[in-house]
Formats: sequence, structure tokens, C-alpha cells
Amino acid sequence: MIKVGIVGGTGYTGVELLRLLVAHPQVEIALITSRAEAGRSVADLFPSLRGRLELSFTDPDDNALAACDAVFFATPHNVAMRSVPRLLAAGTRVIDLSADFRIRDVAVWERWYGETHLCPELLDEAVYGLPERNREKIRGAKLLACPGCYPTAVQLGFMPLLQAGFVDTKSLIANAVSGVSGAGRQAKVDNLLSEVSDSFKAYGVSGHRHLPEIEQGLSAMASEPVSLTFVPHLAPMIRGIHATLYASLNEAGRAAELQALFEEAYADEPFVDVLPAGQYPQTRSVRGANSCQLALTVPQNRETVVVTVVEDNLVKGAAGQAIQCMNLMFDEDESLGIAQPGLLP
Amino acid sequence: MIKVGIVGGTGYTGVELLRLLVAHPQVEIALITSRAEAGRSVADLFPSLRGRLELSFTDPDDNALAACDAVFFATPHNVAMRSVPRLLAAGTRVIDLSADFRIRDVAVWERWYGETHLCPELLDEAVYGLPERNREKIRGAKLLACPGCYPTAVQLGFMPLLQAGFVDTKSLIANAVSGVSGAGRQAKVDNLLSEVSDSFKAYGVSGHRHLPEIEQGLSAMASEPVSLTFVPHLAPMIRGIHATLYASLNEAGRAAELQALFEEAYADEPFVDVLPAGQYPQTRSVRGANSCQLALTVPQNRETVVVTVVEDNLVKGAAGQAIQCMNLMFDEDESLGIAQPGLLP
Amino acid sequence: MIKVGIVGGTGYTGVELLRLLVAHPQVEIALITSRAEAGRSVADLFPSLRGRLELSFTDPDDNALAACDAVFFATPHNVAMRSVPRLLAAGTRVIDLSADFRIRDVAVWERWYGETHLCPELLDEAVYGLPERNREKIRGAKLLACPGCYPTAVQLGFMPLLQAGFVDTKSLIANAVSGVSGAGRQAKVDNLLSEVSDSFKAYGVSGHRHLPEIEQGLSAMASEPVSLTFVPHLAPMIRGIHATLYASLNEAGRAAELQALFEEAYADEPFVDVLPAGQYPQTRSVRGANSCQLALTVPQNRETVVVTVVEDNLVKGAAGQAIQCMNLMFDEDESLGIAQPGLLP
Amino acid sequence: MIKVGIVGGTGYTGVELLRLLVAHPQVEIALITSRAEAGRSVADLFPSLRGRLELSFTDPDDNALAACDAVFFATPHNVAMRSVPRLLAAGTRVIDLSADFRIRDVAVWERWYGETHLCPELLDEAVYGLPERNREKIRGAKLLACPGCYPTAVQLGFMPLLQAGFVDTKSLIANAVSGVSGAGRQAKVDNLLSEVSDSFKAYGVSGHRHLPEIEQGLSAMASEPVSLTFVPHLAPMIRGIHATLYASLNEAGRAAELQALFEEAYADEPFVDVLPAGQYPQTRSVRGANSCQLALTVPQNRETVVVTVVEDNLVKGAAGQAIQCMNLMFDEDESLGIAQPGLLP
Repeated sequence: MIKVGIVGGTGYTGVELLRLLVAHPQVEIALITSRAEAGRSVADLFPSLRGRLELSFTDPDDNALAACDAVFFATPHNVAMRSVPRLLAAGTRVIDLSADFRIRDVAVWERWYGETHLCPELLDEAVYGLPERNREKIRGAKLLACPGCYPTAVQLGFMPLLQAGFVDTKSLIANAVSGVSGAGRQAKVDNLLSEVSDSFKAYGVSGHRHLPEIEQGLSAMASEPVSLTFVPHLAPMIRGIHATLYASLNEAGRAAELQALFEEAYADEPFVDVLPAGQYPQTRSVRGANSCQLALTVPQNRETVVVTVVEDNLVKGAAGQAIQCMNLMFDEDESLGIAQPGLLP
Repeated sequence: MIKVGIVGGTGYTGVELLRLLVAHPQVEIALITSRAEAGRSVADLFPSLRGRLELSFTDPDDNALAACDAVFFATPHNVAMRSVPRLLAAGTRVIDLSADFRIRDVAVWERWYGETHLCPELLDEAVYGLPERNREKIRGAKLLACPGCYPTAVQLGFMPLLQAGFVDTKSLIANAVSGVSGAGRQAKVDNLLSEVSDSFKAYGVSGHRHLPEIEQGLSAMASEPVSLTFVPHLAPMIRGIHATLYASLNEAGRAAELQALFEEAYADEPFVDVLPAGQYPQTRSVRGANSCQLALTVPQNRETVVVTVVEDNLVKGAAGQAIQCMNLMFDEDESLGIAQPGLLP
Repeated sequence: MIKVGIVGGTGYTGVELLRLLVAHPQVEIALITSRAEAGRSVADLFPSLRGRLELSFTDPDDNALAACDAVFFATPHNVAMRSVPRLLAAGTRVIDLSADFRIRDVAVWERWYGETHLCPELLDEAVYGLPERNREKIRGAKLLACPGCYPTAVQLGFMPLLQAGFVDTKSLIANAVSGVSGAGRQAKVDNLLSEVSDSFKAYGVSGHRHLPEIEQGLSAMASEPVSLTFVPHLAPMIRGIHATLYASLNEAGRAAELQALFEEAYADEPFVDVLPAGQYPQTRSVRGANSCQLALTVPQNRETVVVTVVEDNLVKGAAGQAIQCMNLMFDEDESLGIAQPGLLP
Repeated sequence: MIKVGIVGGTGYTGVELLRLLVAHPQVEIALITSRAEAGRSVADLFPSLRGRLELSFTDPDDNALAACDAVFFATPHNVAMRSVPRLLAAGTRVIDLSADFRIRDVAVWERWYGETHLCPELLDEAVYGLPERNREKIRGAKLLACPGCYPTAVQLGFMPLLQAGFVDTKSLIANAVSGVSGAGRQAKVDNLLSEVSDSFKAYGVSGHRHLPEIEQGLSAMASEPVSLTFVPHLAPMIRGIHATLYASLNEAGRAAELQALFEEAYADEPFVDVLPAGQYPQTRSVRGANSCQLALTVPQNRETVVVTVVEDNLVKGAAGQAIQCMNLMFDEDESLGIAQPGLLP
């Protein structure tokens, strides 16, 4: 059994980790911390867990965390990096769902997050937790940086095209749409049902913190710097990421069998599913599931390839992917505890 | 392994059965019938099942069904009763999620359903699949009639009060609210998102087919005929039943400790959860879960007790409860395959 | 032209007043106050008003307000009563959409609102703004107390029955459902889309502040004290109140033609609409409209009459009704500026 | 008074025309046709119109229509063209909200709509009803072809850039999102609330009928053929179009003041509203309003300009724009009857 601790269990990523981990056959949840809710029963805050979990929130305590085999950080950025060095020193594996260890270049991180990084020396050691790109490194990781929800969808959608060198890397576009749970469980007028229901908007058009993370990943895939226009949007739904990706095909790309390229690229992946030509993915097909479904089209047989990608932002975009990485890190079957189909309808 | 067949797998109850059964460790899904979709891959119709189920729909065929250990009917009423006698004769257990075997009095059934019943002689043999009321009979059942979604919520909410004789049985009121999936996967203008989203309405006020089923169950609990006013409503959500039950307390009821009454009544039930006093259930807490959560209040300490009850209409109100009954019928652990927590948010 | 001021223009009732008043041919909006947003353009906060309203929010100032013909208070309770005496003294009419002047018995008000009332001497003078009950008094009112959203629906639904003496007044039940905008434009986790969308719940079962207001009104209609069980619920929609009312018919009531009773009671009312027998109202039919639609049924021809009532909580339940009263107070046509049909779909 | 007839009044565009026209001070609605609903009261089908409209649907009859000053066709394509020649001959103005007269090149029309056009000789005479582009021609129009909902948003968003020659015309991208009412009031499983609520998807990626209409308009603006990648999506909301437009700036474009370009382009337009830099439009701000709000950004100051545009698909994208054109055609004030602010929240 893997003894697990969770830091920051009161947000949506936290409760999703709990939903999945209480049913994971090789995990024992040892503690869940929350400064604000310390002492309160977890099931009292999240009644969906009544009868499934007996724990109460506790104050964060690095010693208690260090007694775990693995600690998940489901916190805002700027929290994990305060505790990670001590946990690693104690031999505890860290799975950070925040942004603290996603960017390799500390100057870029500090520019986008507006903070001084407290342990830049660990950035090299941190493994970026996208199994479809980094599976072998993840197996040996001590410190795992889970990708953001948008970056997972965008990278999985562009990866086969970039690895094959089939598209212009200077004019990539990612038009991405998120459900409101992506904004977290924070008391903000902007995310009230009365504000966002029955409406649609773009936000952060001039610059979103996921941009440097995505460009870093895409550049590695392309083996050259890529330039991405990334526009996130908010849709009136709870869960789900839908990304519509646009790229200009070069001569090799126009000649290639793109459907076959994608099917082969993901043939052995348990959690990436290329739809048959002519079908398009819907976010509801992966609601609650650790699955990324995608499709590609070249409209009018012109020069632009369109890839549409869906995932559940809280599962393949966060908690599910984190557990997928944990399974790899602890030599478990990669799908253990995260193979449930989506909740449809 | 229990070899299972499903008749009518293209509706919401059907796909929910599939979602739960593909993850059930003791079930092998042998066949899924649909006249309209025969030959089509199930995962093509329901992409949430891609990679989880390889079957295609087949034309209904009683011989193939009779080779199963258990057959689920996820059909409209008036279908199961055409095949049940042959299946029972072949030793196959039948779990009927439709209305064909729910009403013991054939005249009542024929009045409300407007059809001639084809095997009224089986009505006595059929066991009503509400485990909290009928667990022992279910264990031995050959023909199981699963309760409707409204009846499950209403009966579980009133049961402790009626069994204790604490309320006036002539003035019961059930104000019930359903998500739109309760109306099924039918092409009807009335259930378009543009028609029912951001809106709320009552329907069937003058009479709903679940009324006789509920009154039959409540009368058995009270050991006398009860009279219920039942008003169903439609809320702009996919899943969920919320019932608000009103009853007039008699003298004994006013003197009793009602919270304790409910807690004791359901103390050993794995899937009925009495909330602490002062909390009220929300349908989202049981989304996707085989769970019924309920709470009770006596507003202003007057004479009316209010019980609020939630369930997922497709799980504890249909597919989950059917599997709970199947587990009992086949001597498996009652919770096998249906113990997952709800999907929250 | 009626020169109008609005206190508390940043909430949903405030912006709804603005939406209707900018199109009202006899109104000039002179000022809108908000302590928090003073100096900010109203259209900047509410982009729906861009090009329709040039004002900015100002700090509350009783002198500026006293220069208006009418002042609307779209504030939480406990604000209007601080300014009303001075405004009345200056000859300004006050239309209070908050709870400060709705309850005639100051002791009841203070018990439910937990505050000391600052001008109890005005409670007698205040006119309760339900035109269907109080039209003539409203015409002469200096201080108008607008009904709450739930009380409007519940009172209009019960009124014909109570005035006719057809129901038992000791066992009335109002099962009411509100859209989330009823909870106001406040930063609260409980009202995030991710918390309330695709879910349904009761709240305040043990006691809601609208109860004494409703019982006061119903008792006046019945000419005797009535006892009401009132259970409010939250539905995943922005706007709308749906009330399902239950009453036990007495002998006279069982003999009466109830459909005709309702049709006659509201025959001359511009904003109450009795549906033909067999139809049930939907909240979407009155979205954005100053209209209350209702229907009645006696299920199974038993002894309980069920009345279903809909309104838009922000229009007939708040801003629209306030303007209807203003029209009466200033001798304008009662329907001026509030006769638009609902926004459907 | 303009005597108006409506053909096809049972869809969402039809009921929206009715909502706006019943409040239009210069319009008398003379008849509304529907083969399927002939004889039924309009307000019976659309209870939002109860008390606002006394008409019943009638069977289509060209003679009765020819007695009107103007006839609106709110029909699927392939209907208007059967009646238009006779109506024009009778001197009746035609405002066609369908696709029959939008495409100037009959071969293109026939390819995309799969039908033979019945009066191609009228295509030259038809005026495309985008007032911001064609105002003077609309004033004199006998036969008006209203733009589709997507084409309105996309053309208004690109127009200033194309007229100024600031972008590469060969790589335009329009990522567009529609509410479900855009799919019409048809009984289809795909548009049930349970299918599309809480989900998001692209559709018609390989080719959508609005593409040739948009490219025709954009090419005219650019005075050269443009090439557009157009991907429509479905969001879980009733109303609203949100378009995110991407274009590659050329040297002149990179040097230009784009915010000023847009503000000047639309300075005199009553229904196009350029937001201040840094704000992004939301569909809810224009819900029910004849308004198009837009914003532009050059993310990271790179070479791609992003324009985000919103409109209500049923108003500025259909019925409102049709009335705007009618006002122009009949020399009324262009804003008459369509100046209401949006319904927010």
C-alpha cells in the first residue's frame, strides 16, 4: 500500500484526488491538510464522501507529511516549494499539481508568477508528468510536476504533428475552452452561476500563465522554439476542457496520412483515444474519466489542420493524471484506480 | 462470473447499466440488444465506453438471452412481459427496470398503463426491488421488479415514519423534482436544452404513473391504505431526484425523536444516509453514486414534518439499485461494483 | 418625467431596475449610489447597459436623493430605514425593495432580522406593494414596501382560495423553488456555478425570513391567522420562482368551480395570468417579464388543491413590481415600461 | 403602420420576431403561418406571448401574404424562394431570414444546399442585410437576405481589418461558438438537455454551410478572395454566438493603432460596440439585445491579432437584425423597437 498525504484538500482538485484515491486498491490516505478547515471532517465539507472516508482535515505539518510515501500538493502555486526540499530529503515522493516545478527556466517562472522561486535547484530534477511524452522519466521521479489542464490537452493534440515536423511552428493557435471548475473553489463574483451560466467569454487573451508551460513542451516536441497564440475561454459547464488547435501544414504535412499518424502515435496509450475520422469529441464523453479523446480534420482539404481535443480538467487535466504518474512512480499498473468510464449523460 | 444480457441498451438507463457493469468484478456482459441500433458498436453510440466495451448491439433474441444468468430489461413498459415467461422457464433471472411487474393489482396496472398485461400470473412472484424494505425476498427472487426513480426516493423518505405510525396517512404530500434524463433519450422538443434549460415546471400534476406504485409501497409500510398527493417537477439538470415530503405528525409523532428514528432505521443500510440535523441533501452529492441521502426537519416545531431526499435517478433510482439487487440475488457482496463516491463537483 | 434615484445599484435587483427604467418613457434616472463602486461607470460594471446609460455610481448622499421624486432602495435590509425618514420629510416617495417595511409587527421584524428597527413609527404608514391586493392604497403611498420574491408568488397563488374561504388555513404548504439570482450578487462559494449547477437542494427548511411576511399577507386574506409550512429550494437556473402550493379543500371548496374562481379573481389584472385547465406554467415563459402565470389542479379529484405559480424573481418578484407600484403612485398607466413579453427561449 | 406577415412562426427565430414585433410601435402583425400548427393560438404554443398577441397560426397563403407590406421568412432554406417572386410582383417587400438569397453565385449555393435554386435571377437583386456594410442598399431593398448568425459575428469582427488591408487574407481563422437555440426547435436527440448540457464540442469541422457566405462577404471587404478556416462549436447555453477570430498582421497592420481603427470604424453604428482595450465581451451582455460587442488584442505583441465578438444569435444574428433592416427599408428610425438593453443576469 502506498501511504499518501494530500496538502490542500479543500479545492476541486483535492476532492477529485479523494474521489479517485478512496477507490484505489493500493492507496491508503493517511492525512489531508487544510489550514482553514483543520479539525473538520472531510465528508462534512464534501458530502459525496460520506461513508467513504473517515478523515478530518489537519493543519499542514511537514513531519507528518514526511511519514508518507507520497505527498500530493493540490495547492495554489507558491506553496509546494516551501515544503518540497524537506520532503525529498526525507525520501518522500512529491507529486505537485501546482505550477511550482513546471517551468524549467526559473527566470520565465518568476516573470509569469511574480514571485521568487525558493528552490530553483530542484527544477532540473523535477519531471514533467505527461506520461505520453515522459513515461520512462516519470518511473524514476522523486519530484513530479503535473501539467496544467490546458497544457495537457494542447500538448497531446499537437504532439504527433510536431514530432513529425509537419506544421509551421511559428503560427500555432490553441483556442481552448474550460468549464468553471477550472477557476477553483474560490468565493468570486465572476464565477457565480448567475454570472457565468448561459454565457460564454474569452479571458486572459493578452497572456495566460499556461502559455510558457505549453510553449516549453511544444518546443521540446518540435526540437525548435515554437510560437503559440493561446486564447482560453470559459463555458457554462462544471467540468471539461475542449481545445481546438490550428496549424499550418507544410509540404510534408500536406502529403502525409494524418489520421494514421495520430492513430499510430497513440496506439499503445491507455488514456489517449483518437476518434475515427469524421467524429468529433465532446467533453461529456470523458466526464469523470482519465481520458483524452481527440480528432483531426483538414477542412476543405486546404492547408490548415484542425485538431479537437477533450479531457476532464479535474481528471486527465489534474487528479487522474497525477495518479497515473503515481502508479508509474510506484511500479503499479499505470491504469490502477483510474480506468472508470465517463459519466454519461 | 455472472453472465449478463441487457435488453434495450440505447437509453440512459442502459448506458448507466453499462457504465457500472463494465467495472463490476463479477459480471461478464454477454449481449446488449437494440432493434434500432443492431450491428452498431455500443462505444460508437456512447463514446464514453470506448476502450471499455467491445460489444455491438444485436437484435433481441430470447434464445441468446436465455443463455445468460441474468437479463436486465432497460426498456419502456410493455416489453419485458413479452419475454419474461420464456426466460424464467429457462432458469434465467430477470431484473426488470420497467414498470411491467411493479404493481401487484393487475387492474390498477392496466388502468394506468392502458394495456392488457400478458402474464398477470407472474405479478405475485415478482419481488419489488427495494432492498431496504425487501432484502430477504430479493435474495431468492427469480423475477425482480425494480422500483421507479420517484418511488425509490419517496418510499425511503416516508418509510420510518409510516412503519412507526407517526403521521396521518391520509394527507401525505410528495413534491418531487427530477433531472431531464428521467425523461429518457427520446427525440422530443419538450426536452431540448433550449426548452428546459434555465427553467422549472411541474408536470403530470393531475396524475403520474408512479403514483399507484408509490401508494402501494407506502400502504404496505403503514399497514393501511395511504393517500398521497404526488407532484413531479422538471429541473434544468441532467441527473438527480430531489423529493420534499410533507406529513402531518400525530400525537405520537410529535413526541418522538425523529432524527434518532431515521438514524436507527437506516443504521445498517449501505446506501441510505441520514444527514446530521441541520444539513440538507443536494442532488450533486450523489451524482453517479448508488446513494440516497436524506434529512428531516419539523419547521417552527409545528405539526408538519418535512423530509428531503436525494438520489441519482439513474443509479439508486435505476441501474445502481438494479445491480444492488443482482448482487443480492447472486449472493455477492451487496455493494460490489456500486460503492464509488459521487462525482462532485 | 419622474426623477428617480436608486440606492444600491450593484446587485441584481439594481441592474434589473436599470434595465427596465432606461426604457421607461416617463422616468429620468438621476443618480445611482454605491459605496463600493463610487466613481465607476455603471455600464462598466454592467456591459449590457453600454450605450443605454451614461451615469456613474456615486456615494450615497441623502440630499441628492431628496432631490428626486422617487427613490428605490435595492439594498439589503437595514439600510433603507436609515434614510427613509429624511426622504419622506423632503417629500420624496420611497420604494423599498428590501425587507425593512414589510412586516407590520415590529417585534416580529426584530426577531427575524435580528436588528432594532430604527423607525417603527413608519410601519403603519408603509403600504405593502402587492397591487393585486392593495392597488388603491398604493396609489396614495409615500412609503412603499415591495414584497419579497417568494411572498409575491405564494400570496398570488393562495389569494383566491383564502378570500373565498375554501381551504383549511392551518395546513397550508408552499414548496417554492428559486433561481440562483435570488441569492444576490455576492461572492459566496455556495453560489458558484460549480457548486449549484446540475444540482438541486432545499435550504432554510427550519425557517426562512420570508415566512412571517407571507403568513402576515395570507392571514389578512383569510381574515384569520393562517399557518404555513414554507420550504424554499434552489434550482440551477439564473432567474425564476416556481411555487407549488398545497391546501386542503373544505366542503365549500370541494363543491366550488375553482378554475372559474381563479379566472374571475384575476380577470382584470394586467400581470396575473391564469392558464387554461390542464396547462402548467414554466418559469421561462415569464423570463424578463413582469408577469405571474399560475394554474390549479385537484389531483385525482381528492381533497388537496395544488396551485403552481411562476414569476421572474427579479421582475414581478422585485424590480418590475416596484415599477408597477411606482406607476400607480405617480398616476401613470400601470403597465408603462413593464409590458414586454418574456424572453423565450 | 407596417403591416407584417411571418412565414414559419413556430421556430425560435419566429418567436423572437414576435417578441420584438409585438412591442414595435410601427408594426401591425397581420398573420403568422405554420402548416403544422394552423388553427392553434400562437400564445398557446408560446405562453410568453399570452396577453400580448391574439393571433392564431394560419396555413401559408401567398395571397394573404401579398396583402402585407412586408413578409418575413423564418423558415428553413428552400421555402422562401417558392413564394418570393409572387410577393415581389405584388409589391410586398420580403425579408428572408433563411439562406435562399444570401449567396450571389448560384452554383455555390446549389453545391452547399444540394438543391436547384428556383429563382436565381433574383440573386442579383437581393440585398445582403448587414447594415454596417450595406446600409444604403438596404434602404432601397425589395428583397432582403438576412445574414446568418455566424456570418454576422465573423464579418463584423474582421471588417475593419480587411477594409484596411492589415491582415493576411489567406490564413484567416474563425473559431465560433453557438448556443443550442441556433440548432432550432427540432425534435432531435442531439439537442436534448441531457445530451448537450454540461458539455462542449465542435461540429461540422470539415465544412459548414455558413462558410461560403462568410467568405463571400469577407472577400468583398478585402477586395480579393479570402480563405477562412471556420470551426463552429456548441456550448451548453440557450442563446449567444461568441466568435474568436485570428488573423496574421502584415507590416502595415503591425504598425497600426488597431483599437483606434475599430473604434472609428464603428463610431456611428448603433448596434456595434467596441469595448475598451483590456475588456472582453460575454454573450450574456447582449442576451436579448440587438447588439454586437467586440474587442481586439494582439497577444504578447506578436503577429496575430485576436478579435472576440459576441451577439445574440436570435437577435443581432437573426430577428433583431431583420427588424433593423425593415426599419431602414421603411424609412423608420433604424433603432425603433430594438433598442432594449440585454437581460443580465
